Amino acid sequence: MKAEIITIGDEILIGQIVDTNSTFIAKALNKIGISIHQITSVQDEKSHILDALNRAQANSDLVLLTGGLGPTKDDITKTTFVEFFQDQLVSDSAVLAHIKDIWKKYIKQPLLQVNLDQALVPSKATVLMNASGTAPGMWMEKEGTVFIALPGVPFEMKALLQNEVLPRLSEAFELPFILHKTLLTYGVGESIIADRISDWETNLPSTIKLAYLPNLGRVRLRLSSKGFDKELVEKSMAEEIQTLIPQISDVFVGFEEDNSIEQIIGNQLVNIDKTLAVAESCTGGKIAAQFTNHPGASKYFKGGVVAYDTQIKTAVLGVDKTLIDNHSVVSLEVAKAMASGVQKLFNSDYAIATTGNAGPSKGDSDAEIGTVYIAIATPNQVYAQEYTLGNQRHRIMIKTLNMALTLIQKEIFKN
Amino acid sequence: MKAEIITIGDEILIGQIVDTNSTFIAKALNKIGISIHQITSVQDEKSHILDALNRAQANSDLVLLTGGLGPTKDDITKTTFVEFFQDQLVSDSAVLAHIKDIWKKYIKQPLLQVNLDQALVPSKATVLMNASGTAPGMWMEKEGTVFIALPGVPFEMKALLQNEVLPRLSEAFELPFILHKTLLTYGVGESIIADRISDWETNLPSTIKLAYLPNLGRVRLRLSSKGFDKELVEKSMAEEIQTLIPQISDVFVGFEEDNSIEQIIGNQLVNIDKTLAVAESCTGGKIAAQFTNHPGASKYFKGGVVAYDTQIKTAVLGVDKTLIDNHSVVSLEVAKAMASGVQKLFNSDYAIATTGNAGPSKGDSDAEIGTVYIAIATPNQVYAQEYTLGNQRHRIMIKTLNMALTLIQKEIFKN
Repeated sequence: MKAEIITIGDEILIGQIVDTNSTFIAKALNKIGISIHQITSVQDEKSHILDALNRAQANSDLVLLTGGLGPTKDDITKTTFVEFFQDQLVSDSAVLAHIKDIWKKYIKQPLLQVNLDQALVPSKATVLMNASGTAPGMWMEKEGTVFIALPGVPFEMKALLQNEVLPRLSEAFELPFILHKTLLTYGVGESIIADRISDWETNLPSTIKLAYLPNLGRVRLRLSSKGFDKELVEKSMAEEIQTLIPQISDVFVGFEEDNSIEQIIGNQLVNIDKTLAVAESCTGGKIAAQFTNHPGASKYFKGGVVAYDTQIKTAVLGVDKTLIDNHSVVSLEVAKAMASGVQKLFNSDYAIATTGNAGPSKGDSDAEIGTVYIAIATPNQVYAQEYTLGNQRHRIMIKTLNMALTLIQKEIFKN
Repeated sequence: MKAEIITIGDEILIGQIVDTNSTFIAKALNKIGISIHQITSVQDEKSHILDALNRAQANSDLVLLTGGLGPTKDDITKTTFVEFFQDQLVSDSAVLAHIKDIWKKYIKQPLLQVNLDQALVPSKATVLMNASGTAPGMWMEKEGTVFIALPGVPFEMKALLQNEVLPRLSEAFELPFILHKTLLTYGVGESIIADRISDWETNLPSTIKLAYLPNLGRVRLRLSSKGFDKELVEKSMAEEIQTLIPQISDVFVGFEEDNSIEQIIGNQLVNIDKTLAVAESCTGGKIAAQFTNHPGASKYFKGGVVAYDTQIKTAVLGVDKTLIDNHSVVSLEVAKAMASGVQKLFNSDYAIATTGNAGPSKGDSDAEIGTVYIAIATPNQVYAQEYTLGNQRHRIMIKTLNMALTLIQKEIFKN
């Protein structure tokens, strides 16, 4: 079975928005056994959309489209569908009632003609009700290929996909089992890992594919396999992973499919009944935001101080001013004092602190751009490490975040 | 001139990573007058890459590819190029010297054969030196179409594009002027804006295209135009914008091409010589991270407290415990006390505070999921607003962020 995604919208092609819809759809389809062999983004232009539809129809059994279903004049997916399927638009009474209901309950503003027109759908379409918005999804078929159009608003697309599309696909197609296992490693580069595991990689069975995904201080190793015998796929994968892990045990953190590193840290802190606080200078809130992204963070994460201004490090975190004068605000000593300071202030068991120069200018310190100190405070001690992380602001910030997560992860799994 | 982007990598097609490279390339090419008419993502599979190359060659004058140039076995772009261009790989002495130099200066580990092999390039390729990494870019031509291959690591791709590709493209092609102006609006929905500006939109000249980009509490209006007479394009665009702005002045914040809303806020704070601090509960560090993403934030941003744990609101921010007991931790009163607390603690002129229930469970409050309070402290007063922002954690957090930015923006531009 061949499947592809087509995303419609000039905003993608001029680089104004990142196409996260395709990522979400591809991942969700993989989970039910459908591999995507191509993603195509095209302009809001009828002839170009028609080209893409024709090409997809010739190549694929399933085509998922997003975008161009909104109420404004730049939304042309429905009129293009009418042409492609040689159909006409009709008003769907269930969609119309749903729109009126939304306006009555939530919007409480005059219902405009453009909103009512959202109920127009091609007569041959199976309507997929959009509980989260006004643009319905549509399921259509042409010469053996299934076309599913979804709105481009990520929130609406996701709900429609989960509730209306995936169950119907599982019913309409006989699908294999797809298994991805991604090993998260932190601390060494991809060629070093590749060298270490080279023999293992050479002997991998052809049914398992390996990919290296390096990114700012971490490398993800993804193993992929597929088959109709789920048990066999899982067994073969488990065997290979069992051989692999001992070769990378010093840098291996966990499986991405189960949890991110911050979730692994959070779960372990809950297990050992300990709490965490953070004092951030050069990461500016990113470490706190990373932990609080996940529900349940309140079980172990007490909070943090973004001590962006030097004066805040003394006034709020209680860092001794003479320490800053003697060692500079970007130093091992100040990082340690920040970690201890926030640990005390927040009454937490563990604390992380960052101070560094992310550039582009030097700020309140003579430290070179890219020089970063990360400190960890534990119930028994406080220590810090120095890093040199390049000269690009955003990269320095993300690398610092990843290194801080690596340090605290190693610390709390020590015993 | 027709241009397209091809990104290579299974990680995109299984939804493991978001393709941000295409976004960056599309935006950068637009700036020098090149429109992208299609973006295609294909698997790490020779036959599929060859298909994509052949189709692109038949359709486009310029093709930019990223991915598959790394040192590991899953990287097959170069061997595929050899087949497509009927060429062979040769070792490039400049690249080889560059790789050896990187290992000597930075890596300080044994140089492996896979690293040396990075110097292999098709003999017909013009090598684009990658100063930030070991995989060189390549410029090749076939029957009038230019193919440019770049590494998939975003940092390396970006540097190569800026330094090696864009100048060469500007020289090789005669390019038009492309102008995008995107009006940032905060606070009302797209159909309301569309209705308000409907007459203006109908009368837009055909040379200017309008798009609506709605997203979690804000709508961006993008106007696009293109032509060889730069002055004419700019004049016509300026006239239309001058007519548009008065119709949306209550929700218009600024132009995205100039600045994001947090930069607009930052610049204004610097102009009026005032500072800002934040106290975040339900946004968990996201507001601080948003401001500190930008260089120069230290000029006005003092920092913040992530008061995730209820106890931190009293212990660190000095919120009166009886206030929490009487009104609940998610309340107008606590939001105001948090804003005043951080304003005092950080000695800032302005402060923002958020408290709310982002779900999925209720936490230390009886407030419904989606109930959020945002407070603003100014040099003269403190006030707060209540919001109801749905029931999805991530959306609630981002909407709160956007609403907080809207409130502080309106406040500091009041006079």
